[in-house]
Amino acid sequence: MTIREQRMDIAVGSSHVCATIVAPETLLPGILFVHGWGGSQERYLERARVIAELGCVCLTFDLSGHAATSLRFETVTREHNLQDLLAAYDTLIAQPNVDPAQIAVVGSSYGGYLAAIATSLRPVQCLALRVPALYVDSGWEIPKLQLRKEQNLEAYRETIIAAEANRALLACSQFGGDVLLVQSEFDHRIPPAVISNYREACVQARSLTYRLMRGADHGLTDESKSQAYTALLSTWLREMVFDIRRRAGG
Amino acid sequence: MTIREQRMDIAVGSSHVCATIVAPETLLPGILFVHGWGGSQERYLERARVIAELGCVCLTFDLSGHAATSLRFETVTREHNLQDLLAAYDTLIAQPNVDPAQIAVVGSSYGGYLAAIATSLRPVQCLALRVPALYVDSGWEIPKLQLRKEQNLEAYRETIIAAEANRALLACSQFGGDVLLVQSEFDHRIPPAVISNYREACVQARSLTYRLMRGADHGLTDESKSQAYTALLSTWLREMVFDIRRRAGG
Repeated sequence: MTIREQRMDIAVGSSHVCATIVAPETLLPGILFVHGWGGSQERYLERARVIAELGCVCLTFDLSGHAATSLRFETVTREHNLQDLLAAYDTLIAQPNVDPAQIAVVGSSYGGYLAAIATSLRPVQCLALRVPALYVDSGWEIPKLQLRKEQNLEAYRETIIAAEANRALLACSQFGGDVLLVQSEFDHRIPPAVISNYREACVQARSLTYRLMRGADHGLTDESKSQAYTALLSTWLREMVFDIRRRAGG
Repeated sequence: MTIREQRMDIAVGSSHVCATIVAPETLLPGILFVHGWGGSQERYLERARVIAELGCVCLTFDLSGHAATSLRFETVTREHNLQDLLAAYDTLIAQPNVDPAQIAVVGSSYGGYLAAIATSLRPVQCLALRVPALYVDSGWEIPKLQLRKEQNLEAYRETIIAAEANRALLACSQFGGDVLLVQSEFDHRIPPAVISNYREACVQARSLTYRLMRGADHGLTDESKSQAYTALLSTWLREMVFDIRRRAGG
């Protein structure tokens, strides 16, 4: 256990007394989970419980247009959901036992796309992207649901895209933390070219961990694959959290 | 590890998203150390480090009139020092990782006397008194240094005193938490009658642990006795802390 000592003056009336706090270090890493389009936080709760057991504070949330606000499914935009993510981030780092210098964002598909962009707007040390989606930058204010048709996404996702030409890839190219990138072998939504674009973008990452999940589909509908991803994420976070603490001299 | 889950709404613009925090419980017991007359927090730091290793947040402090403020040694009153103690208590419970429902106050000699009184002014779950001193209630505002002469303390401390007749004993008689009372066999300042008065006063204590330290003097000047007290305190606190957590369903 790491014990910290902190000298302080305590005011007593017009004078003060000298005091010392001797206490175990209990600030923990914070992990923010961002679900994909059509998902909800419920799917991440089991995963969050496993990660919390590592000694992390986890936050899951429902993106606008999902779960209780599903009436807005057809009108919600990327900007709305990005604001959701940032509000969730701000709530996570405001928890009294969270170390703001140890934040990981974990996103799948559309949630991975948003998570990548968030690294350009908030301090993030670790970024886990499972089958991250990719969209054209334009039309930022039109409903997310219309993007597939409006942006001819199937073709877009088969092309090689330079980091400067896409907001999410640009954020990845400027991200200096640790990256986990997970691909599914049988992914009918996110073709290998998208994963390659993300991987190529991470030129400044402190570490890059790329894994292909054999036999897995986009949504990890097979429960054993879902558990395998939780194990993979858990192993990676454990390594990264200990690494961050070691760098911080903890 | 105890994991807590907390549902919450996070405001985003004029709307909100539903979120869940999944986190290890990291609120720790707080332990306040109160040194005796003529002492200083330095003597308690080693002890505080041992107790912190149990998973407790410890606070030591210098009473007014001691260490940096020793110029006031001759003028400081019991009221001044009681206010010091209360300010230190308030600082301890304000630490973000301290559970205000798990506070122990540990005092020796004059510090034990003040600690006993503090239980009537602040919520305390565990009270450890080593060779607690006793003073007459009157003259509350005269300098502490004059009490021995003014109050004929040597005679006072050989008498049987009813709890209602003394502020510290009255506080003990109304204290419903766990009490540790430690006597030194060769104590030339605090005769056995004082310890008996304290012990008799603790009629409502949830638990009472009385120990006589064989061969020990008032100030535990023998290093092995000092270490033995640290071990005794550590064992008692460990039992009490786990007991408080069990009662809280932790």
